[in-house]
Amino acid sequence: MDVWFTENQGPGLRIGCQVKKVLASTKSAYQEIAVYETSSFGRLLALDDVIQTTERDEFAYHEMIVHVPMFVHGHPRRVLIIGGGDGGCVREVLKHPSVQLVKLIEIDPEVTRIAREFLPGISHSLSDNRVSLEFRNGIEYLRETDEQYDVIIVDCTDPVGPAVGLFSDEFYSDAFKALSDDGVFVEQTESPFYNLDLIERVQRDLKKHFPVVGLYLGAVPTYPGGLWSYSIATKGAELPGDPLIPLTFSGKYYNAYVHRAAFVLPEFVRKRLGGPPVD
Amino acid sequence: MDVWFTENQGPGLRIGCQVKKVLASTKSAYQEIAVYETSSFGRLLALDDVIQTTERDEFAYHEMIVHVPMFVHGHPRRVLIIGGGDGGCVREVLKHPSVQLVKLIEIDPEVTRIAREFLPGISHSLSDNRVSLEFRNGIEYLRETDEQYDVIIVDCTDPVGPAVGLFSDEFYSDAFKALSDDGVFVEQTESPFYNLDLIERVQRDLKKHFPVVGLYLGAVPTYPGGLWSYSIATKGAELPGDPLIPLTFSGKYYNAYVHRAAFVLPEFVRKRLGGPPVD
Repeated sequence: MDVWFTENQGPGLRIGCQVKKVLASTKSAYQEIAVYETSSFGRLLALDDVIQTTERDEFAYHEMIVHVPMFVHGHPRRVLIIGGGDGGCVREVLKHPSVQLVKLIEIDPEVTRIAREFLPGISHSLSDNRVSLEFRNGIEYLRETDEQYDVIIVDCTDPVGPAVGLFSDEFYSDAFKALSDDGVFVEQTESPFYNLDLIERVQRDLKKHFPVVGLYLGAVPTYPGGLWSYSIATKGAELPGDPLIPLTFSGKYYNAYVHRAAFVLPEFVRKRLGGPPVD
Repeated sequence: MDVWFTENQGPGLRIGCQVKKVLASTKSAYQEIAVYETSSFGRLLALDDVIQTTERDEFAYHEMIVHVPMFVHGHPRRVLIIGGGDGGCVREVLKHPSVQLVKLIEIDPEVTRIAREFLPGISHSLSDNRVSLEFRNGIEYLRETDEQYDVIIVDCTDPVGPAVGLFSDEFYSDAFKALSDDGVFVEQTESPFYNLDLIERVQRDLKKHFPVVGLYLGAVPTYPGGLWSYSIATKGAELPGDPLIPLTFSGKYYNAYVHRAAFVLPEFVRKRLGGPPVD
């Protein structure tokens, strides 16, 4: 059997992964959801034919979107995750002993149901008793909530369709209000090679609300271009943060030096964002 | 017209680039050579259906394989490039005013002929009067030469077929002998996600000959996994080198801080290579 899942990763660019078996393929109220057993990446979760995560490289994404803001904060107790219904971010957040509550707001219950069934290595922490899971629109939740969080992590799909509002000025304003006085916000902001316009806009919008805004990068082989960006904003904490904090901790991708090096931007990204000559 | 060039980047993994026009397609004594006008990456050079370079992202590869060893050396006058018949490395080497001679040893004259015709932005420096171009086997050249170089750059294809010998113990021994007392060697060593066995072996073999050996990484979107590795070895110069040297210089990807950060390895790479807890 020579069957391939192919993602159109952008104009004129495709990635293909060989499929051994289709484990799930369904249409929820929001999107098409599929899980494939691949020959080289383990199980692969796709939403509307876009790769969200694979068992082989999910660690690189989940560790970087979680541990950087967590260690920049230093002692987060209450963490909000918007999106991330597969549970990968929850798993990483719970590696921090200071955490008392992880609130997960996922719009699509089908994503979580399928992740629980087919991606146990990613979703298993969803049943931890510190986790509060709610299926609703994250934009509305953040607009309406009176809760306060130490870290907000936006683990969302590409900025098309329902996710557009997660990259809006209003959303960042609501995120600021829902953060405690030493709160830290992070959002995945796509590829520095292909989506620099988006990154520039997000950075500009975040600066309207947050005094400290930065960008860091990490490799994710199955995402377009293989290099991914994360926009981070704080209410005052310096970036990249106290280098001594994470020295005792390492993941499979993340360690204290990876944390600091991730803030060093290739010259074409640094120039575009108008940062200092070097960071 | 909806035509795609597809590279099988490894078991179960493909990348595809949409082709607007086939500019060249020929078979030399060594390989199939093709240049495509793509819809998103400018012109793309493929050897045996493997992407070597594209106009859009070649800067990331050529700057990182060249400027890191050049600045680790500090004042290179004589530089040897093995492979790299497209001229991209030559172009970057010549940005260093200390350089008096660039010797380019390319096995396949057809690669250079086609690069001169179809990739002028990459190949234009080949006509600089500091460049000495010779079409022969680089392994044999290095075994036989009495010349001494300050920097040796191995800009080769994947370690299959004729390139296998460029990743051998004997080759590294010959490279050591052809380097001046403060010489620096660098070789592209594939993807840290997919080729860690190769990287580990190269690092081990280099350590048999060189007192200082290191690995650094850089993003290249059209290479497998999007993250590329470079193995570097010196006769004594410390890595990543004096941080003050390259402060006056930047490319489109490279700057002084990128240089240093490139030596910080994801935890799974660091662990595999048996390095210190953090670099």
